Formats: sequence, C-alpha cells, structure tokens
Amino acid sequence: MGLDELFHPRSIAVVGVSEEETKPGTRYLDGLLTAGYKGEIYLVNREGGEVRGFKVYRSVKEIPHPVDLVSVFIPREGVLELVKDCCEKGVKGIQFFTAGFSELDDYGRRLEKEMVKIAKEHGVRIIGPNCIGLSCTRCRMSLGPGGFFGEEGNVGFISQSGGFAGLMYNYGNLWGLKFSKVASYGNASDVDDIELLSYLFDDPDTHYIGAYFEGTRRGRELFELIKRRVKEKPFVIWKGGRTEEGGETALSHTGSMKSSFEVWRALVRQTGAVESQGIEETVSVLLAFQNLPPIRGNRVLIIAGVIGPGGGMSVISTDILPSYGLDISPISDGERRKLEGVLTRLVGTIRRNPLDLGGVPIKLGDVLEIFSGSDYDIILIWIPLWYFQEFRGWGEDWERASEVIIDFKRSMKKPLALISPPGFPGDRGRAILKKLFDNGVCVFPSVELCGKALSSVISYWRRNEG
Amino acid sequence: MGLDELFHPRSIAVVGVSEEETKPGTRYLDGLLTAGYKGEIYLVNREGGEVRGFKVYRSVKEIPHPVDLVSVFIPREGVLELVKDCCEKGVKGIQFFTAGFSELDDYGRRLEKEMVKIAKEHGVRIIGPNCIGLSCTRCRMSLGPGGFFGEEGNVGFISQSGGFAGLMYNYGNLWGLKFSKVASYGNASDVDDIELLSYLFDDPDTHYIGAYFEGTRRGRELFELIKRRVKEKPFVIWKGGRTEEGGETALSHTGSMKSSFEVWRALVRQTGAVESQGIEETVSVLLAFQNLPPIRGNRVLIIAGVIGPGGGMSVISTDILPSYGLDISPISDGERRKLEGVLTRLVGTIRRNPLDLGGVPIKLGDVLEIFSGSDYDIILIWIPLWYFQEFRGWGEDWERASEVIIDFKRSMKKPLALISPPGFPGDRGRAILKKLFDNGVCVFPSVELCGKALSSVISYWRRNEG
Repeated sequence: MGLDELFHPRSIAVVGVSEEETKPGTRYLDGLLTAGYKGEIYLVNREGGEVRGFKVYRSVKEIPHPVDLVSVFIPREGVLELVKDCCEKGVKGIQFFTAGFSELDDYGRRLEKEMVKIAKEHGVRIIGPNCIGLSCTRCRMSLGPGGFFGEEGNVGFISQSGGFAGLMYNYGNLWGLKFSKVASYGNASDVDDIELLSYLFDDPDTHYIGAYFEGTRRGRELFELIKRRVKEKPFVIWKGGRTEEGGETALSHTGSMKSSFEVWRALVRQTGAVESQGIEETVSVLLAFQNLPPIRGNRVLIIAGVIGPGGGMSVISTDILPSYGLDISPISDGERRKLEGVLTRLVGTIRRNPLDLGGVPIKLGDVLEIFSGSDYDIILIWIPLWYFQEFRGWGEDWERASEVIIDFKRSMKKPLALISPPGFPGDRGRAILKKLFDNGVCVFPSVELCGKALSSVISYWRRNEG
Repeated sequence: MGLDELFHPRSIAVVGVSEEETKPGTRYLDGLLTAGYKGEIYLVNREGGEVRGFKVYRSVKEIPHPVDLVSVFIPREGVLELVKDCCEKGVKGIQFFTAGFSELDDYGRRLEKEMVKIAKEHGVRIIGPNCIGLSCTRCRMSLGPGGFFGEEGNVGFISQSGGFAGLMYNYGNLWGLKFSKVASYGNASDVDDIELLSYLFDDPDTHYIGAYFEGTRRGRELFELIKRRVKEKPFVIWKGGRTEEGGETALSHTGSMKSSFEVWRALVRQTGAVESQGIEETVSVLLAFQNLPPIRGNRVLIIAGVIGPGGGMSVISTDILPSYGLDISPISDGERRKLEGVLTRLVGTIRRNPLDLGGVPIKLGDVLEIFSGSDYDIILIWIPLWYFQEFRGWGEDWERASEVIIDFKRSMKKPLALISPPGFPGDRGRAILKKLFDNGVCVFPSVELCGKALSSVISYWRRNEG
C-alpha cells in the first residue's frame, strides 16, 4: 500500500474520542470538523453512544462502511487488539498518536515490533507511533490534536517531532507559506523518512520540500535519495540533535540513533540540499522557494524609508546582507540621474544602495520602474508592518505602498521581496500581510532571515541549474 | 541647561502642525494627546487658527506662557528664525525632527553650525536635527511622529537612528520591556551620546540602559564614561555600520564618522558593557536585566512539554543553549526519585534535563517545587503561547500553567524564565502574556535569544560583582 491513499483518505475513523473537548482524540476530531475534512468521519470508543452528533462505534469492526485511515488515541495497552481489528476490517493505514513504545522501554519496543508485524502481514501501513500523523490541505485533513490547518499550497514538510510539525504549520502560515502536506512520523516503526520523502518527491501537489530530522535509520539510502532527486524539487533540511547532549535527548524523544552532526552536515552538502537551523530559517528558505523565481545572481538593491524613517534599516542591511554573500553594488550614474527626476526632495533621502526614500510612499512605483530593467537580481524593500500601521494615517500609507508592490510583482519585471523588522502585526498589519501573501509576495521576518533565505536559494539554483 | 528639564518638560510647543492628520507635526501632536502628556501643549504655525481644539500661535514668541521644550517640524529654511524666536522666548530646549543638515550637504552643515551657535549663546539646548527626539513615560511624553509610548518602567534607551528608537519601543513593549526614557539624537549637533548616556546613568528612574550607535565623535570620552559607570547600571550596546559599506551608509544617515568595527568591539569589551546585534538581541538582553535577579552561575534546568509536545523543544534546547556557555547538567538521583512521585505517568515524558513533562500541566507546580532548592541557577520553561491557545481547551490549560508560573515567580525561590517558539500571539496569547509581564515574568522570543540574553547577563554580573 502506497502513501497516496493515506494522505487522501476517503474516510477516517477516530479511535479514543469523548465529549470532553480537552481530550486529544476529541481535539483531533474538532480539528477535522473545523478544517472541513472532505471525507467521512467515524468515531470509536469502548462506551459507544454519541459525540458531536456522530454515532460512536464500540470497535472499528462495527463500522458498516469502508475505512481508509484510523487515527488512534488510546493507551498502548489496547493497541494490539486494535491493530487486529483494523486488519480484519481491511483499513489502509493506522496513525498512532499514542506514545510509550520504543522511545520509552523494552515492553514498548516489543509492542511496537509486534503491531508492525501483524499490520504488515495484512498490508496495513502504520504511521508513528508517538507522532501527530498526516495532514493534507487538498482533502482538508488537519494535523494532530492541535488541529493545524491552512490554505492549499505546494510546500510539503515532514518532521520526526510532532511539535515541530505543528509549529511549522503555525509559523509558516503566519508568513504566507502554503502547504500541500505536513506529516509527523515519530518512531517511524513502518512508514519512515525515506518513504515519506520519496512520496513528496513524487507528489504532483508538492513543489518544495522541507524536513526536520533527529536521525535516520537508513542514512545511506536517505542521502542517495536526496542526491538523486533534489534537482527535481528544492529540499530544505533542519537537523535536530546536533550536540552530544542534543543527540541523547533525541534518543529519548523519538528513539533516534545518535549520529555525528559533522558527518551529517558533510553528507547533506554533498547532496545539494539546503541546510537550515530552526523554525524561522526553515520557513524563510521555503518562502523564498515558494514566492521567488529561480535567482542565480547575488546583486541586490535595497529600498528603505518607503514610509517613515529608513536610515537605520539601510545601515543594518549593509551590515548583515554581505555576510550572506549578497552584493550591494552602487546604483549606476544613469539610475542616479533618473532618481533625481523622481525624488525631487533631497532631504532625508540617501541615493545610494541602500536607497532611503525618506518617507515618500507616492514615489515607490516610479522608483521601482527605474530599476525594473537594471542589472540587480532582486529588489528588497523594507516594510515595517508592525509599528506604524495602527497609528493615524500610517495604515493608509502602507496600504497604498502595498498596492504598488503588488502591481510591480505582477509585472514580473524583476524579482522582489520585502523585509520586515521583527514584531507582531496588529489587525491592520495582518490585513496588509494577507493581501501581500494572496498575491504571492515574499515577506521575510528579519534582515538576517532574508540574507539566509536568499543565499540558500541562490546556491540551490546555481548548483541545480538546468 | 541639563537634560532633566527637557526629559520632564512642563510645556511643549509643537511648531509646524496642521489639521491634516498625516503631517508629521500633527502625528506627533496626536501621539502626545493619545499618551496623555501631563504638561501644557502649545501649537505654532504661520497661518494661526485652531487645530484639534487648540489655538494656534503664529510664532513661539506669541505664546503667553512659559515654554520648556519646542518640537520642530518645519523645513530647514525656517529654522534660524525659529531658533532666534526660541532664544528670545527663553525656552529650555529645541528638538528638530527636521532633516537636511550636516547629513545632507554643505549648506545643511553651515546651517546646523549656525543654529547651534545662536542657541548656545542663549543657553538653549538642541536635540538633533534629523531625529525623533526625547520621550519619557513618567511625563507621558510619547516619542516622535510615530507616537510611540508604553508603560512606565526602568529601561533607558538612546539611539542615533530615529527608526530604531521607535522600533525599540514597539518591539520592547511587545515583550514586556518597560521604559523610563527613550531618546533619538540624530546628528547630535549639541546634545550627544555622551551627555545622554551620562544623564541616564544619573537618572534615578533608569536602572538599565541600552544604546544604538552608528558612530561617535568623542570615542575616547565615551568609552571612559562607560568603563567608569557600567558597574552602576547594566549597559547594552548595539553598533550599526559594522562593515565598510555599513559605515558609509551611516555617514549618509547621521553623518557618523566611520570607525573600524574591530577597534570598536575591542574597546566595548574593555569597558564591561554588553554587546548586542539587532533589535531582538538588544530587547532580550534588556529583558533579562529587567526581570531577573543578578545571576552569576550558568547551570540551567529546562522544562518542556508543560502542555502539548515537548520533545522537539527539548532537543533544540540542548542543541542551542550550550553554545552560549550554558550548562545543562543532569538532574540528581534524589530529584529523579522525587519526580517519580509526581510524574506517575511514564509515557511521553523525558526525565532528564531537559525535562519533558509530556503535556501534564497540572503537575508543573509540583515539579517546580522539587527544583526550588536545587543547584540550578535558573529554570527555563518552554511555553508556546502562539499556536495552541486559540484552539479549544488549550487556552485554559495555558492560563492555568501561567498562574502556576506567576506563583512560583512570586515565591522568589529560584529565578525562572520562559522561552516561546517564534510566532505571533492571538488575543488569548496576548492576554496570557500581559498577565505574565504584569508580574515581571521574563519571556524570551526564541531559544537562541534566551541563550544570548542569559550568557550576557551572567557575564555582566560576574564581571561587575560587588
């Protein structure tokens, strides 16, 4: 049985569910209902009855319809019987949110082995245990008890850690990252990193792939797979358990074997995949793949002071971006002359690269036009969405500036990305961000993350060129 | 004239104001009104009339009451006449939001010199030009046209860049940093970094100081001042214009002389001040000073999985924190035995350091109690405020956990800080954060920032001990 039917199940049975909304099984059910899962939902627990208006069956076998995927929230003591029921019922796969297997003790290790053995004999696949399972935006199947969900997109992400799979959804969505599939595979007793990764490379809905690994059991095969296929789709790897202490913690977390991080890193580099560290970097690199065309040159033009002060942001751009290999070459004499026709007010502007417009939003479109045919590979615009937009008048200015940015993005004349200083958006900022995201505009959460993301995608496209 | 009367003016005249709410002068006025500035406000422009219900005077001289501080938003062409008027009126200081002086051209340079000369002859102080001026939470005097303002506190911040002064307010407030004074001094034509810094060291309302510098004119004196006084109050320095390109941009921005960053860094290290880079680091280090007692030891206990999964967060804690010199020593056998009495459910927990509670919030208080008398110097708790709290039931769990954390913080038994994975809080998360901040709980925006902040404060307190 391949994974396609598990990522697009026509029906899900939730085992271990009650009316108590804080129970993980019930949270998972509520997540599916909120997301609007497109298939059929069946509920199972020992007591029967009714939950959320659904009839509750006392066992999987009692469900009078076909079941593709079973999501399990019962304690480990009941799993062997459940697996047997599922095999008898002829389900396609079982995802175990239940923990307490090979990551915990010998009994758990034996139990895990036994349930995989039974399932394999019947062609039933197992996800986990000790994971938060599979999700798919096209089927509106949300992720785990956190109910993570978002708009349909083309980024696939797999994670050994359930927490990071959820965080990826949450943090990625905030920045306009749109997922096809997100999956957490925990102890990988049956379906493992290699199978999931192969699936995402095959999946036509997935164009870019990210992964959080703590370790792998089939290292050689994993690296060969990546090396062979990374030209087809950009692939970003975040490795946890880098230090000796981190490796030991990973062992307790998902039962991962320790591996020297230096060996791991050397192998990743040979494959041509992109390395990242932490949720922010991983999201930023994937954003750059999702929203920018392939960029192979490193010449950037920086525009600050679109509204409000831009001097400090110009200074730190030149502090930070060159350290990521980006080139901030001066503007040409011809460009400077054209700028003089547009920026008639001298005061508060800096006509270099970075270019500080001195807070005259109306000119942004004219300035972009000047550089639309330039030698720069990408234009970066500082847009502090947070701190002005709730104050009188600034919000309107930013809305107008955003329209100009969206128009320029649509013109396809030159790649463009935005840099936001760190902070939280208010209601107005969220509305502006949403419009930018809906139009595929790339917004980086900080200048450091912008530098990291651009240098990563440039290296990828240079290496994996045609 | 010292700076105390300028930071606590009994009256402010705003010069260059109109009914148009998007004009900088009007935005500044609206900021003062929103913050509830405690002194008198007078308005000035050439047309007279009325704005926001205030009479508008045609010149500063016409104001029939004493004026302490004048805030200027008119073009540079009118500034000499204005300075003369202010001298005649006998004001105490003038802050020039106006740009177009020594940072722009020769004419601007001469103008700046001339206005400082006139003002000095009359004992009138000048802030800027090319800045967003002074602010003080005690007088409810907001900062610049952005109207930045926040709760009264004990952190003083000075910035050559107006944009970063505003961003500091905005981003700092989001994480519970509370300011006494924030000031931007732009071209520093009269009041400069040294005078502002001396003032903050003297100011009884200021207990911790931060600064963004692009350069300085009196380097030797600056470093001697810091060296002499840094033991009195923790001082955090962020230097912009680190690269050659950055230095050139700084020259155009605030007319700062270029200085080799390596020389600068060596000098800072000799003083015993704390170095930082970027708004997030600077805020995080100041947060640690504001909210934690002096910590000199580096032994940390990490608690994850308070609610929801904690395994991945445990792994990256051990990846990141040791690289900042923090020691994650194992818990003792005695502590492990006590834990067994509390964490009766084995599954999903990791009883090491990091400690993964496996998502049982009710136990957090008991667990903290076990370590209240331990050898650890600080307890760090992962609290993902973002992604769960909007979903059914999670918010209540986090509210309960926050209460436990606040109680433990009040007990003063052991320093404690929280680590949040990156993201934006929703309404519920904001409410929880606010309660934590009101109770002085330190929340770091990421594990990297937690590492940086703790290593900085530990070094500071070790070096500047007793």
